[in-house]
Amino acid sequence: MAEINIALIGYKFMGKAHSNAYRQVSHFFPGKLQPRLRVICGRDRAGAKAAARQYGWEEVETDWRKAVERRDVQVVDICTPGNLHHDIALAAAAAGKHVICEKPLANSLAEARAMLKAVEKAGVCHMVMHNYRKVPAVAFAKRLIEDGTMGDIYHYHGAYLQDWIMDPNFPLVWRLDKKVAGSGALGDIGSHALDLAQYLNSDITAVASQMTTFIKERPLPADGAGAWGAKGKKGKGKVTVDDDANFLAHFKNGSVGVFEASRFCGGRRNYNTFQIYGSKGSLAFNLERMNELELYSQADAAGRQGFRTINVTESHHPYVGAWWPPGHIIGYEHTFIHAVHDFLVALEKDSLPEPNFRDGARDQAVLEAVELSAQSGRWEKVAR
Amino acid sequence: MAEINIALIGYKFMGKAHSNAYRQVSHFFPGKLQPRLRVICGRDRAGAKAAARQYGWEEVETDWRKAVERRDVQVVDICTPGNLHHDIALAAAAAGKHVICEKPLANSLAEARAMLKAVEKAGVCHMVMHNYRKVPAVAFAKRLIEDGTMGDIYHYHGAYLQDWIMDPNFPLVWRLDKKVAGSGALGDIGSHALDLAQYLNSDITAVASQMTTFIKERPLPADGAGAWGAKGKKGKGKVTVDDDANFLAHFKNGSVGVFEASRFCGGRRNYNTFQIYGSKGSLAFNLERMNELELYSQADAAGRQGFRTINVTESHHPYVGAWWPPGHIIGYEHTFIHAVHDFLVALEKDSLPEPNFRDGARDQAVLEAVELSAQSGRWEKVAR
Amino acid sequence: MAEINIALIGYKFMGKAHSNAYRQVSHFFPGKLQPRLRVICGRDRAGAKAAARQYGWEEVETDWRKAVERRDVQVVDICTPGNLHHDIALAAAAAGKHVICEKPLANSLAEARAMLKAVEKAGVCHMVMHNYRKVPAVAFAKRLIEDGTMGDIYHYHGAYLQDWIMDPNFPLVWRLDKKVAGSGALGDIGSHALDLAQYLNSDITAVASQMTTFIKERPLPADGAGAWGAKGKKGKGKVTVDDDANFLAHFKNGSVGVFEASRFCGGRRNYNTFQIYGSKGSLAFNLERMNELELYSQADAAGRQGFRTINVTESHHPYVGAWWPPGHIIGYEHTFIHAVHDFLVALEKDSLPEPNFRDGARDQAVLEAVELSAQSGRWEKVAR
Amino acid sequence: MAEINIALIGYKFMGKAHSNAYRQVSHFFPGKLQPRLRVICGRDRAGAKAAARQYGWEEVETDWRKAVERRDVQVVDICTPGNLHHDIALAAAAAGKHVICEKPLANSLAEARAMLKAVEKAGVCHMVMHNYRKVPAVAFAKRLIEDGTMGDIYHYHGAYLQDWIMDPNFPLVWRLDKKVAGSGALGDIGSHALDLAQYLNSDITAVASQMTTFIKERPLPADGAGAWGAKGKKGKGKVTVDDDANFLAHFKNGSVGVFEASRFCGGRRNYNTFQIYGSKGSLAFNLERMNELELYSQADAAGRQGFRTINVTESHHPYVGAWWPPGHIIGYEHTFIHAVHDFLVALEKDSLPEPNFRDGARDQAVLEAVELSAQSGRWEKVAR
Repeated sequence: MAEINIALIGYKFMGKAHSNAYRQVSHFFPGKLQPRLRVICGRDRAGAKAAARQYGWEEVETDWRKAVERRDVQVVDICTPGNLHHDIALAAAAAGKHVICEKPLANSLAEARAMLKAVEKAGVCHMVMHNYRKVPAVAFAKRLIEDGTMGDIYHYHGAYLQDWIMDPNFPLVWRLDKKVAGSGALGDIGSHALDLAQYLNSDITAVASQMTTFIKERPLPADGAGAWGAKGKKGKGKVTVDDDANFLAHFKNGSVGVFEASRFCGGRRNYNTFQIYGSKGSLAFNLERMNELELYSQADAAGRQGFRTINVTESHHPYVGAWWPPGHIIGYEHTFIHAVHDFLVALEKDSLPEPNFRDGARDQAVLEAVELSAQSGRWEKVAR
Repeated sequence: MAEINIALIGYKFMGKAHSNAYRQVSHFFPGKLQPRLRVICGRDRAGAKAAARQYGWEEVETDWRKAVERRDVQVVDICTPGNLHHDIALAAAAAGKHVICEKPLANSLAEARAMLKAVEKAGVCHMVMHNYRKVPAVAFAKRLIEDGTMGDIYHYHGAYLQDWIMDPNFPLVWRLDKKVAGSGALGDIGSHALDLAQYLNSDITAVASQMTTFIKERPLPADGAGAWGAKGKKGKGKVTVDDDANFLAHFKNGSVGVFEASRFCGGRRNYNTFQIYGSKGSLAFNLERMNELELYSQADAAGRQGFRTINVTESHHPYVGAWWPPGHIIGYEHTFIHAVHDFLVALEKDSLPEPNFRDGARDQAVLEAVELSAQSGRWEKVAR
Repeated sequence: MAEINIALIGYKFMGKAHSNAYRQVSHFFPGKLQPRLRVICGRDRAGAKAAARQYGWEEVETDWRKAVERRDVQVVDICTPGNLHHDIALAAAAAGKHVICEKPLANSLAEARAMLKAVEKAGVCHMVMHNYRKVPAVAFAKRLIEDGTMGDIYHYHGAYLQDWIMDPNFPLVWRLDKKVAGSGALGDIGSHALDLAQYLNSDITAVASQMTTFIKERPLPADGAGAWGAKGKKGKGKVTVDDDANFLAHFKNGSVGVFEASRFCGGRRNYNTFQIYGSKGSLAFNLERMNELELYSQADAAGRQGFRTINVTESHHPYVGAWWPPGHIIGYEHTFIHAVHDFLVALEKDSLPEPNFRDGARDQAVLEAVELSAQSGRWEKVAR
Repeated sequence: MAEINIALIGYKFMGKAHSNAYRQVSHFFPGKLQPRLRVICGRDRAGAKAAARQYGWEEVETDWRKAVERRDVQVVDICTPGNLHHDIALAAAAAGKHVICEKPLANSLAEARAMLKAVEKAGVCHMVMHNYRKVPAVAFAKRLIEDGTMGDIYHYHGAYLQDWIMDPNFPLVWRLDKKVAGSGALGDIGSHALDLAQYLNSDITAVASQMTTFIKERPLPADGAGAWGAKGKKGKGKVTVDDDANFLAHFKNGSVGVFEASRFCGGRRNYNTFQIYGSKGSLAFNLERMNELELYSQADAAGRQGFRTINVTESHHPYVGAWWPPGHIIGYEHTFIHAVHDFLVALEKDSLPEPNFRDGARDQAVLEAVELSAQSGRWEKVAR
């Protein structure tokens, strides 16, 4: 078993989740490569040190360029807000490091394409962290579509709904600032929904959208406030991203798509769902019950048809054999472990993991078309 | 208790449901007016006679004009395909009859407006049979919205999904013929979804849509074949309506809407659902579990919040006191009984029941905008 | 179509439900025999007259003996409290009338056996109204068990839970008086649960039980108060029946049973459920969602197994063809219509409907063993 | 942060789960004590070495006595089959080690009491691994009961159902051997159900039970076969434990209990559920959806009552603040991390964690009464 050294840029929510994945992966998916948590990087040294201590990193940097250029680092993992993805990825590629990047890949299609070009030119391995592809139920849905169980897909509905900024007094954190975050519900959660759609179904070729900001001004956050629910300081600022973004889509395979992304849907804590309707069957998934997949099959006998709830916790299902016996469920963090496992396997085999920057750029093209359509008031083609 | 004589035009699926409503209403909602099932009308005398016998009608007509003009008839109930609604309604109004009409009100906005004008001019009572407003859970949702429990509505999702024409060999019945049916999934079931939205939420002011026909040719139906699943005869014909129609919407109150209507969603037998998200709470409904309403309330204590399933079968709930004890559910047919009850009460009080032809015309304007947008590829305003 | 005249004894909750069944059956299940609502009987003339008017009965009697002995009556339907079942049934049989009787068949096994003997001796048709056998999902479950789909049954759980008497101030109505009602939760709802078990699975041969009264005294009901929620008058009386009755059971076929019946389960409005586990599959049912049956089949492919929710609303399912298209659900009252339909068919064919007094007596033997075990503190055999 | 050295006896399913807990706990619940995975012990050296490598243990022993007596060990964690619990626990206590023991605590009440006596005499810290108490939804249920939200409890139903030995060709593994496992479904999963009941509700004072073995002979397992699904070798042996065990219970607080434990319930992969009915509200839980708790409250307004599904993933809920944002679920393994966290906190504070050997012995007394009742055919008191 060889070690591979990781540098993690960013130490908040995603930093915590990625750290856990690196620590855990070899205990459940033993392989030739074992990640070593070499260095974690954050602008705030005290914060970064505390994260290093809690999450198990050996060293700390406060300048991402230094972290990226360290000779003892083989993989750079980017967990920063979107506005830094491009620069860090390009630097990492230039330094010959493999790159893992949080989603959405970038804040614009131009950036995303430049990032893809850079990693391809550098010949490094790359992955974009659309971790929900790695939910066993989702990976199993993919298998059922690919093996023809669902027939031809007709209709795809994806919705990713949350409610954490409904309070008008929730402050203007970075995720509500277009310059930093790129967009609002669209990029943060809608990107997951459309990534799953392009993964499970087909390329999106055109979209018609609406993007809405319900609360147009919010309290400014206190200095040093984090992303989640920090108290506001005096004064208000303008919300520059969408609270809610919906779009219709055409898929390359002739099917139709309907998408919802909103942070204003009360009671939907983390409601990432899809329903897929094909000529031979249907599938339904809800991340809040991520160990389950609902399957309807036309092949079932007449009178005995219905959506069945598969407890996707068996050795027959993707990734699950590494964990616990049937019915003993796994959770959110496991998706990152599966992603890192896939990344390590790709490194071992000198192949490209999924989803990679191609997928990220393909998703970014849809995000850009959605934003364009929201302004133009008409269907917009997705750039290819 | 005074009798009021009904003439029913059409004796198939809707004829059966309406007949039952007239027979049953006074046994559960005793009032001053009791419907008398005077005459049922169908072009096929044998079929109409059989229906009269089974459903309890006293007499039979084969010419709808004769039925409408009978002096012993006070109410004309139109259960024909959409292409006849306009002519029958105008004749009925001209003859001074009260009118109940199946949905959608007409095959075009122009027809719908002419129908509204006619009944208003004649001063007769009128109702369009959007019976799902009369589901107790739906009427209770309306109450929760009106009394402020839900706060300001932000996001509305309505989906009416079925699967009965997925087989490519299902024949080209009248519901797949634009001249007769007006449109496909859009008018047949999408009209219900948007009627509920305009009832529960607000006027739809603009839409962006996509309408798709997956199976473009189908076997011609055998002579005399009915609407549901009749065997095809030799030869094929072109499907002239949509199999699937989706649209985004702006509501007058500033909220956003996402709508799906499809007959190609396997396993969704009669899946008429909505989710409504407001500033104070959320609601979810599914017609297949029509005795339940899911309510999420921000007013619940922190840590104890969640969607609760209300069994809408208590005397506290609309219409339910007339039926059975709590937990003893009612079904599809009861919605028509409630509608007829509301119609009779309106007649008694010389008031206008809901939904009436104004609502029907308002819905028709949305249907027309959806069709227009599907052609233009851009947002279209709803005519007012 | 020949008419058959009915005399209904009792006009409250069950009277309403049975009346509806007689009125409706021929409109959905046309047959040779059509019930005629000839006479309704209640001790209170005003109440009986009001019921006759609302439910459509032609005449009224206040003395059940007169009603039973009328020459123009062919069927006597007993909807009284349990303490009158025996006498009325014997009188009806002696008068040569066919008999339908509400459940439980009697207040003791001796009575039940005498009733069975009487109707058999008289050669009349007889039915006990365990209407939940007539839920399409339940009848379909029976079919799946009989055709071998479930394999050998191992484990049966039946629970019928309600909550309508939880308020300690709910008055001492007749259902809480052992002399009138026979027992409490056990006879009222537990009898349904065990009837379904003996119908679907096998004879119960022995039981071990516990019966509990949580609220031992209650306000006396006001004069003339009905069964449901009437306000109490001054003074309290002793509750003489069980609030809650549970038992373990052995079945003749070697399977094991666990039963719960309680009126103290908050939020369970009418929660009549079973889960049946066999060597080849499992079934689950809940009356509050009575149009659904959950089926698990070991025959499904590995990795694709799970409980599927069958919407039991298709023409493939028992009784359903008479009603509405798939997904258009039916309700509580329909179970009585199905039962009356089966009764009429049996009359036509001179056969015995199910469930009949044999079934009622078989159920009564279990009720008696449960009461005995609650006193003896040990397993008790069911008398045969 | 001080290290505390662990010796783990047993390296299969539970060994894997406990190892993970020791590795993970400090990364999410940083405290003064940090476990060090010092030595893992198994009779098969190769197997133990492989486990040590994969799970992160520093050293290996093959003789549990040596492991227990090591001077560098402070905590002995017993993950062996039940027949070894007693001897190891006594040796560990004698050596002055703190002890964690898998459930059920022992194979007999006498053993359990001896174990309790030993740890108390030695003054060491002790815990029995009824990990399901540590599910956030369960701990939250406990809080709702203790703070009076549920009122007085009337009725408790606990069911732990699985299906992994339904195949008659599943071999005679140690869990089906009474000498090793103590009992079958009763001790393995029924013990969890009754532990939750005694934790959440009250002491069980008497029981009436039935215990059944459906498949009386099974293939002998191959040499060295593990506990889960190993292939059988030639020849059959007698199953000496129960496949299915159900019992009624009286609780000290006057409430009644109904319990089911079975390994023959197809489709129930790991269905550990309870429903608790009190005078003010009800609770329902299912381990397969362990991040959810259903709460019904009589305090909700009339007409708005219903079971609500709480997504128990908020900082308001026990343990959850250490993990992820709301709606990002956790899984099976987290329960062990919570338990170890509680154990470490107790060590820090020199207090006794829950559940400890007292709880284990209290549970064992119920297990013994259930076995006794199954033989005697009558209610048996639980020894105290």
